[in-house]
Amino acid sequence: MHKTPEVYALLESYRVGNLHDDDVVDHSDEEMWVREPLRDRRLVVKTARPFNAEIPPKLQIQHLDTPNELFYVRQHMPVPELDPATHRVKVSVGGHDPRTFSLQQLDQFPRVTLRAALMCAGNRRSEMNKVKPVKGLDWAGGAISNATWTGVRLRDVLLQCGVDPTDTKGKHVILQGADIDATGVNFSTSIPLATALSEERTVLLVTHMNGAPLPPDHGAPLRAVVPGAPAVRSVKWLESITVSELESPSHWHQKDYRAFNPSKTWETADFSTAPPVYSLPVTSAICDPGEGEQVKVKNGHVEVKGYAYSGGGAKIMRVDISADRGATWVEAQHLISDDAPPNTHYGWTLWTARVPVGKGQSEMELWAKATDSNFNTQPEKFDDIWNIRGILSNAYHKIKIKLQH
Amino acid sequence: MHKTPEVYALLESYRVGNLHDDDVVDHSDEEMWVREPLRDRRLVVKTARPFNAEIPPKLQIQHLDTPNELFYVRQHMPVPELDPATHRVKVSVGGHDPRTFSLQQLDQFPRVTLRAALMCAGNRRSEMNKVKPVKGLDWAGGAISNATWTGVRLRDVLLQCGVDPTDTKGKHVILQGADIDATGVNFSTSIPLATALSEERTVLLVTHMNGAPLPPDHGAPLRAVVPGAPAVRSVKWLESITVSELESPSHWHQKDYRAFNPSKTWETADFSTAPPVYSLPVTSAICDPGEGEQVKVKNGHVEVKGYAYSGGGAKIMRVDISADRGATWVEAQHLISDDAPPNTHYGWTLWTARVPVGKGQSEMELWAKATDSNFNTQPEKFDDIWNIRGILSNAYHKIKIKLQH
Repeated sequence: MHKTPEVYALLESYRVGNLHDDDVVDHSDEEMWVREPLRDRRLVVKTARPFNAEIPPKLQIQHLDTPNELFYVRQHMPVPELDPATHRVKVSVGGHDPRTFSLQQLDQFPRVTLRAALMCAGNRRSEMNKVKPVKGLDWAGGAISNATWTGVRLRDVLLQCGVDPTDTKGKHVILQGADIDATGVNFSTSIPLATALSEERTVLLVTHMNGAPLPPDHGAPLRAVVPGAPAVRSVKWLESITVSELESPSHWHQKDYRAFNPSKTWETADFSTAPPVYSLPVTSAICDPGEGEQVKVKNGHVEVKGYAYSGGGAKIMRVDISADRGATWVEAQHLISDDAPPNTHYGWTLWTARVPVGKGQSEMELWAKATDSNFNTQPEKFDDIWNIRGILSNAYHKIKIKLQH
Repeated sequence: MHKTPEVYALLESYRVGNLHDDDVVDHSDEEMWVREPLRDRRLVVKTARPFNAEIPPKLQIQHLDTPNELFYVRQHMPVPELDPATHRVKVSVGGHDPRTFSLQQLDQFPRVTLRAALMCAGNRRSEMNKVKPVKGLDWAGGAISNATWTGVRLRDVLLQCGVDPTDTKGKHVILQGADIDATGVNFSTSIPLATALSEERTVLLVTHMNGAPLPPDHGAPLRAVVPGAPAVRSVKWLESITVSELESPSHWHQKDYRAFNPSKTWETADFSTAPPVYSLPVTSAICDPGEGEQVKVKNGHVEVKGYAYSGGGAKIMRVDISADRGATWVEAQHLISDDAPPNTHYGWTLWTARVPVGKGQSEMELWAKATDSNFNTQPEKFDDIWNIRGILSNAYHKIKIKLQH
């Protein structure tokens, strides 16, 4: 009786986004979910099962390194419960016997600490979703956080297991987690072997996050961290590493996290020929004030804060803010980051700008735009980068605020 | 008598651009210019003294590696005449005695051949110049060419001269050429020491271009090639290399090739705090057909060709063409490049797209837009990337053509 066109039209106006198959999990087996970890109540939950939650924007910019309990969470499946004392990771390199390493055995390699932001390839999807609906979790700007990661180099482990560093062409490293979907398939994805062996990329097998053992939500007791890449490549609950002439055959690798142009539809997009996304473009977001907020004008200015980030090792060089739709730009005065050089800079950048306000001005539209060390910058609008999966959503962040004099 | 506002207004309409001080050289000493090399008549000359010329767009896309005689030429001063038999390069590393190397002595190091495009940071400035006048040579899209370069690694030379590869922070390598301005100052610029030592960047000291000895216009007998960087860093007629805690003090390094936001003027721009440009953003251009050309429609399509490039080692992943101002996009079908992996990909990419034509359509506006392996893409328009020096001019290339059925 309710299935009338009028009711559908009414419901359509409340739609916040379309889920992708990946985000739809069979919840019928309650047993799968009873061991989920406790989560911080300040996280903004997008889906409860699997658990996906972003960090609220005002908390996001409080710390250069996000506290572990506030780090955004992106799960594909229930969280596996693994015992650090018995956990093993298996490393298979063609032509050599597979080897397994306990956490203690991994400790033979030099320990490395690296600062890197992890960002979901779908961060800021909600803005692209407004141009034309896309499939995927309706992330605002909270699917990125920053941390220091401690572990050992994947490079060192692979070299000890017999990988030939001069023979990387066309080879991949398949990373598999202990998380399993309803059909019994483990999560996996892959990265190019050249990336895994790069001395500049420093791909890590990580046991510690901001100095503490990895929390269950972030891959305890062992995860990969592939700095500069979409976070999906930083496989959690890591249990096997395989050097292969093929990319990961998994659904997550083959049918997702690939880029298309705005004219490709679900019918015309060919995932088998589209390149996997292994690096993220320059982006930025305004975190404080928030959309629609009333802001107090001080000495003729409003203070605006946010983050900026670019993948592939690029460093943020400048953040510009416009309050007049691009006619003039104010450069952010304080960029907080670390001193890792461009090309090997994997952390995010927090910024503060002071934007002048006209006398008696009651409203303001703010645009944020970052420039990285390759001098790439963001596209102004989402139309020309729109894609069916709603990833790489990095156009200028635009918000409207009210001014209080 | 002619110095009236009316005459100035009339002349203004014929202005093609404003020269920067760098491009204005004292020509009074004719003697300086008598040894200039002969140049190919097909080059499009922008200034005769110093010689600056671009390659015509239709020749640009004929070869993956641009023939030496057609490679675009960007000189700051007269071309020095150097004898390969007696030429020496001096290498100074703090704490060690300076060393000098003849070309023969450089041959002790392993020879390396690398494909890299060189692009002037001001390529496509003419398009930015139309938004609001900038200072600099009014380059169309012809200030980029591609070649294979053969030489030895700067890294190997520096290590033999005593550089400590673990102590790169805040250090630079100053590269000085034999070309001299009217006041007796040699051309120089610098790059970060970390870049010079990077195994992935492969900065070269080059003697051969596309298999032949370097031509005089391209730095004979020895030049640097810094792949992925603006061509200004690839110093020609190289005569000294100095590791320093300071960047090059030269005018060309301190007062040029730095990036500003669109609101900075010559009065407010602070070159001392602006970051030097060491890497180039993603760009593309349509080379055939040209602006305003009449194009024959074949089987309901027009064929469009051009180049795309991104600095810092990024590889072009996709080129999209729109014939309806961004409403729909056609992906270029043929991308011609080499198989160097993303992150160490320094050559350009040539592309061909087939764009559908509506029945009876008589005109078409074409937009080109490239996406690189970091999934950065070009800004749609020049307004928000405009800068006083007209560099990094990488918005969509847009042309109008006429259609012949």
